[in-house]
Amino acid sequence: MSSNEQFANTAVKSWKMAVGRLNDVLAAADNDKLQREVAPGRNRITYLIGHLAAVNDRLLPMLGIGERLHPELDAAYIDNPDRALPDHVSPEALKQALAEVNDKLTAAFEKFTPDQWLEKHASVSAEDFAKDPSRNRMAVLLSRTSHVAMHAGQILLVK
Amino acid sequence: MSSNEQFANTAVKSWKMAVGRLNDVLAAADNDKLQREVAPGRNRITYLIGHLAAVNDRLLPMLGIGERLHPELDAAYIDNPDRALPDHVSPEALKQALAEVNDKLTAAFEKFTPDQWLEKHASVSAEDFAKDPSRNRMAVLLSRTSHVAMHAGQILLVK
Repeated sequence: MSSNEQFANTAVKSWKMAVGRLNDVLAAADNDKLQREVAPGRNRITYLIGHLAAVNDRLLPMLGIGERLHPELDAAYIDNPDRALPDHVSPEALKQALAEVNDKLTAAFEKFTPDQWLEKHASVSAEDFAKDPSRNRMAVLLSRTSHVAMHAGQILLVK
Repeated sequence: MSSNEQFANTAVKSWKMAVGRLNDVLAAADNDKLQREVAPGRNRITYLIGHLAAVNDRLLPMLGIGERLHPELDAAYIDNPDRALPDHVSPEALKQALAEVNDKLTAAFEKFTPDQWLEKHASVSAEDFAKDPSRNRMAVLLSRTSHVAMHAGQILLVK
């Protein structure tokens, strides 16, 4: 395996670990727990599931993997805070959407070549990328991995 | 810049972003807030600062950077849960230790060559590393970056 492949593999493994840990926490939570806030007055777990599903779903076009699977989640789980809109998606359906999105991402990540990881992502212009080549797909992967870990840490707080 | 260097730089940038975000949250917190729990019955912020300082301090020998700066933190902040031992270090001193450790790590990270990132870390044997070369320094960096993000997400919950 080339050094480049080792770097790419290590990053994908780190993504899979973060997603795996989140899945473990969610799998252990019943529906009652999913309705609880991670701290008083803060987001409910169910909101965070929808939020992670929507944010990660945006990676599909951003990283050139494909069309979005769940653009309908943006209004309730990105554009608005928790409880601003009535719940119209069950926690079970949100978990399903999150799994679907993360599985599709992981399958694509495992096929990216090192060169593809260093290509620009779709939210940066060719001009800006020429000035700052660190705005590549790998940077997005690492940033979203941290994002998953951040919210998983919050969900872990709920008893 | 070679592709290898781009991968290494992207990962170090992601570490610096996670640490920077944590620093921003801590800088905005007064001493009163640092004594609060991140959720009812969970760790206080001050404990998490000590915990992150101690865990990251362990990276110094683990990544071959140097001796530990704060091994005295392990008992209270790794080996025992919050409030098991009396507070004997002030939140201010813990913040200072965390900054010192993270600064030393970051300075070393910025000097590692791509090849050095792919070397084994000190907690894996040569035999095990031969079987699984993904147990390299880069894997540790990404894992600890997620760890920082996870606890920063918890600290963010405190009003």
